[in-house]
Amino acid sequence: MHAFRTHTCGQLRRSDVGQTVRLSGWIHRKRDHGNLLFVDLRDHYGLTQCVADVSSDIFPVLEGARVESVITVTGRVIARSEETINPRLPTGDVEIGVDAVTVQSTADVLPLQVAGDQEYPEDLRLTYRFLDLRREQVHRNIVLRSRVITAIRQRMVEQGFLEYQTPILTASSPEGARDFLVPSRLHPGRFYALPQAPQQFKQLLMVSGFDRYFQIAPCFRDEDSRADRSPGEFYQLDFEMSFVTQDDVFNAIEPVLAGVFEEFAEGRAVTPAPFPRIPFDEAMLKYGSDKPDLRNPLIIQDVTPHFQGGGFGLFAKLIDGKGAVVRAIPAPGAADRPRGWYDKLNAWARENGAGGLGYIIFGEDGPKGPIAKNLEADRVEALRGQMDLKAGDAVFFACDKPLAAAKFAGLVRTKVCIELEMLETGVFKFCWTVDFPMFERNEDTGQIEFSHNPFSMPQGGLEALETMDPLDIKAFQYDIVCNGVELSSGAIRNHRPDIMFKAFGIAGYSPEHVEEHFGGMLNAFRYGAPPHGGAAPGIDRIVMLLADEPNIREVIAFPMNGQAQDLMMQAPGGVSAAQLKELHIALDLPKPKPKAQGAGTVTAGGDAG
Amino acid sequence: MHAFRTHTCGQLRRSDVGQTVRLSGWIHRKRDHGNLLFVDLRDHYGLTQCVADVSSDIFPVLEGARVESVITVTGRVIARSEETINPRLPTGDVEIGVDAVTVQSTADVLPLQVAGDQEYPEDLRLTYRFLDLRREQVHRNIVLRSRVITAIRQRMVEQGFLEYQTPILTASSPEGARDFLVPSRLHPGRFYALPQAPQQFKQLLMVSGFDRYFQIAPCFRDEDSRADRSPGEFYQLDFEMSFVTQDDVFNAIEPVLAGVFEEFAEGRAVTPAPFPRIPFDEAMLKYGSDKPDLRNPLIIQDVTPHFQGGGFGLFAKLIDGKGAVVRAIPAPGAADRPRGWYDKLNAWARENGAGGLGYIIFGEDGPKGPIAKNLEADRVEALRGQMDLKAGDAVFFACDKPLAAAKFAGLVRTKVCIELEMLETGVFKFCWTVDFPMFERNEDTGQIEFSHNPFSMPQGGLEALETMDPLDIKAFQYDIVCNGVELSSGAIRNHRPDIMFKAFGIAGYSPEHVEEHFGGMLNAFRYGAPPHGGAAPGIDRIVMLLADEPNIREVIAFPMNGQAQDLMMQAPGGVSAAQLKELHIALDLPKPKPKAQGAGTVTAGGDAG
Repeated sequence: MHAFRTHTCGQLRRSDVGQTVRLSGWIHRKRDHGNLLFVDLRDHYGLTQCVADVSSDIFPVLEGARVESVITVTGRVIARSEETINPRLPTGDVEIGVDAVTVQSTADVLPLQVAGDQEYPEDLRLTYRFLDLRREQVHRNIVLRSRVITAIRQRMVEQGFLEYQTPILTASSPEGARDFLVPSRLHPGRFYALPQAPQQFKQLLMVSGFDRYFQIAPCFRDEDSRADRSPGEFYQLDFEMSFVTQDDVFNAIEPVLAGVFEEFAEGRAVTPAPFPRIPFDEAMLKYGSDKPDLRNPLIIQDVTPHFQGGGFGLFAKLIDGKGAVVRAIPAPGAADRPRGWYDKLNAWARENGAGGLGYIIFGEDGPKGPIAKNLEADRVEALRGQMDLKAGDAVFFACDKPLAAAKFAGLVRTKVCIELEMLETGVFKFCWTVDFPMFERNEDTGQIEFSHNPFSMPQGGLEALETMDPLDIKAFQYDIVCNGVELSSGAIRNHRPDIMFKAFGIAGYSPEHVEEHFGGMLNAFRYGAPPHGGAAPGIDRIVMLLADEPNIREVIAFPMNGQAQDLMMQAPGGVSAAQLKELHIALDLPKPKPKAQGAGTVTAGGDAG
Repeated sequence: MHAFRTHTCGQLRRSDVGQTVRLSGWIHRKRDHGNLLFVDLRDHYGLTQCVADVSSDIFPVLEGARVESVITVTGRVIARSEETINPRLPTGDVEIGVDAVTVQSTADVLPLQVAGDQEYPEDLRLTYRFLDLRREQVHRNIVLRSRVITAIRQRMVEQGFLEYQTPILTASSPEGARDFLVPSRLHPGRFYALPQAPQQFKQLLMVSGFDRYFQIAPCFRDEDSRADRSPGEFYQLDFEMSFVTQDDVFNAIEPVLAGVFEEFAEGRAVTPAPFPRIPFDEAMLKYGSDKPDLRNPLIIQDVTPHFQGGGFGLFAKLIDGKGAVVRAIPAPGAADRPRGWYDKLNAWARENGAGGLGYIIFGEDGPKGPIAKNLEADRVEALRGQMDLKAGDAVFFACDKPLAAAKFAGLVRTKVCIELEMLETGVFKFCWTVDFPMFERNEDTGQIEFSHNPFSMPQGGLEALETMDPLDIKAFQYDIVCNGVELSSGAIRNHRPDIMFKAFGIAGYSPEHVEEHFGGMLNAFRYGAPPHGGAAPGIDRIVMLLADEPNIREVIAFPMNGQAQDLMMQAPGGVSAAQLKELHIALDLPKPKPKAQGAGTVTAGGDAG
């Protein structure tokens, strides 16, 4: 018989009754029923109930072992009596009559309980993460994460992608966030940077002829933490393809995302491929966001003409004087909400920087509210008709310059949806936002600037740059969005130095500037570069969506806390003077204020459990 | 028709003749045959020959595009005439009659050629890695690496392992090599370390109840480069299992390794599982190494008794006076080698620190050589009989203290095998070295020390530590070896604090020392730890073996050079004073000698292609 187990704790069934078996695991719970001691034995695979007689030799051993001790039990599989069957447990038809027990490892008094649903402060959970990870929900999340990543890999390979590793010790990238730096021992005064993303490497792989690349890529940004962003490191499904149009990118990745979400949806509906493709302008108009949450059924409309030159002077003046527009957000069935509800929303709007939140209520007895009082009845009726509103509905308005109006209307759309409890649940709604503008005018300086990614290919190529109004040029740039969460932006890249110089010129950069800052990629593109494009959906966000967890730390095995500390390993830690010397650096600490804002009680150097 | 391609450059066959197709790729070669221009178009998938008529409009376009320019061609698939079929090319039955061509990207004059087999200096290759990677052999190696890793992952998952990611920004580990450090911005004076291996995390995953973990894990060591070790980062197949014996570990990983090697062996033979398991003592005796290369058929034997008290005084004195042993290395068929050959080996032995290399030649007319002259004939004959040597064979001797004799005999075994061209080729020979000693005596200090890994479980557990001579205790510690290359060491871990304190005590460490240095893991083991073990075969070495490449840089897409520089991205690079300030560090440069030993011509900061 195996030294530790013949079966896992999730394996035994009624058909195993009569067998002599051996199981190993953690003591999850103990229940003393007078003459019998019940022990729930737990491992990665499940729970099995073990029973020992109080009169047996093994009773004192089991009784003496605290919960979370690791034991090996040997015994017979017994069918449970009808009334003691546990239908919620896959092993619930049977139990083990324990004949022998070995304690493999004893547990001290626990700082947090593994069994049960008690909540603990995050820092305690992270300090004893090895205990926290035994708890059912987080254990399940981490297993889910592993299975999701495995499924993604398998589906990417099925789509003809190959996974290539790109360097982790590399150079600073020109764009973006703050780098983590690594001092070089061999090259005094020089530093490696950890990659914020393998963007340049994946494009270089295309230039190297590898055609379809992907990587579950670790990325590093020294930025402050958020609920959906871990400080330090995160993973993305980085991919890139050569000789592709934007549609090819969509067609390649949609089956992967839809397939993986379906695989782990557990009954939740998933948008089937092809996902809706919503132009940026339409997204801003209808959803007030370039990350539309399609679970929200409310659709914003432009209703400017109804207000232009009309009797509601506030909006009419803004439209004529400041070029404002009016966007309308429907609130179906909200007519019977009390006045206080509208006042509360008005206050919320002011907190969010708007002057207020105008509305019309379409009561059974006609339109109501301050706007309806002032706007001509035929205009109100025309507006109602355009919005397809019925008696019992209401409508809110955002009036501002187009971009501000769109964004605020988007906030209202979200707020009203929540208030009216109209958000569809149990679904994953995907869409692409496409046709992002290549350039935008900086409202402060009047200058033309890049809207998003300067390295995306402009639609229409060089000819568009040479002949069109820059503000009318769209880019082959897109976002993939699920339930209003941006999983990734992506683009068909600009692989042509001539087009790059022209685009940067429009944004006010000299060829010398471009050469100085982006000479590396430009140089690579000078030796034959294929048209290429890709994206990089965030793995952590995908798992958060599937696990239905609002905090990223619930889907990472060993996350840092919000202050970028690993409390279990005590990182970051102190290092010796000799180590610093070897790396040619010295500490340059802030002047001692009351007490340095260091890592608190953490001690220097060594490892910690 | 697709903008870039209807087929890849490796796809067209005779059955496609008559179709109009579009291909995109790099101009691999051009050949001007008077009235026809032949262009070999290359992409990731293969090569296709394209033909244009000199009189056509497209001729000047093709003629003007340098090799390695990227073009798109549209044309008809034509069957090649019988005499122009190229049987070495999968597309060799056909060619494209080009009707239209678009240049997607023009190539400048190349710093290195992609077509052909010309050799280039490594630094040139790495500076233009995006060109170098287009070359057939390295391109194939990188694809092989990807496929090998994918196959490993798939087989590990089939064995019930789940892949979990462990942190890359973490704390210094207590053992081992030099860490890469990352200064913390939020915690002045504190540093993260990049993991030398996820050893502690994988053990913590076992303590967390995850049962079977693996990871294709990036590891970081700030060590000097070697042919089989990249400076900076490398990858290992890190795995760990709970509730297992040593045999369970072997049984789990053998099908993965054997399966992957068989999958990519391309006709080379692979040791079938189960692999031979060779105790450390036997390996040192028979192969003179704990990493036996079983392709070498020569087996070392101990022949001390034949020399003890015998007529060959040199050995006899060493045996009696210094406790030396004599190890014999057979040299089948070497009797007819000229005297100069033996002299050369003798000189080689002296270069390698031995006094010389004694031998006996068994000629047709009897034993010859200085030893045979002095050693009694019956002893020579008994030795010959033990070694099963025949007329025409020879035998070499290593006489020293046991460990030194074993090691030197191992060197001789390798040398003689090469000299006699007896190394088996076209095979992958696996074995496990097992039963490593737990302790050894330091010959200088006389102290008992740990032989290998202090954290391995001693065979016999606490009882062995309490009752046996420490030098007789073996550990559940093992190496997996392929063709004499150590792919990994591994162990059943010591998960019991009581056994750990006892083992460290034998090696002279106080409980306080153990608590101070290894408190983290000890603490985790105090809350219920399962028996567990694993290993971590090196990915780069596996791919090197399969690709039959002696240099690790041939199997990594973007390797650093021997001086730990990425010449393409210009890493490590300079950073700004503001960045240093933000990280609370200052440079502490070596005194300026003639000129700092920095990264040469590399310029500061930005990226480079």
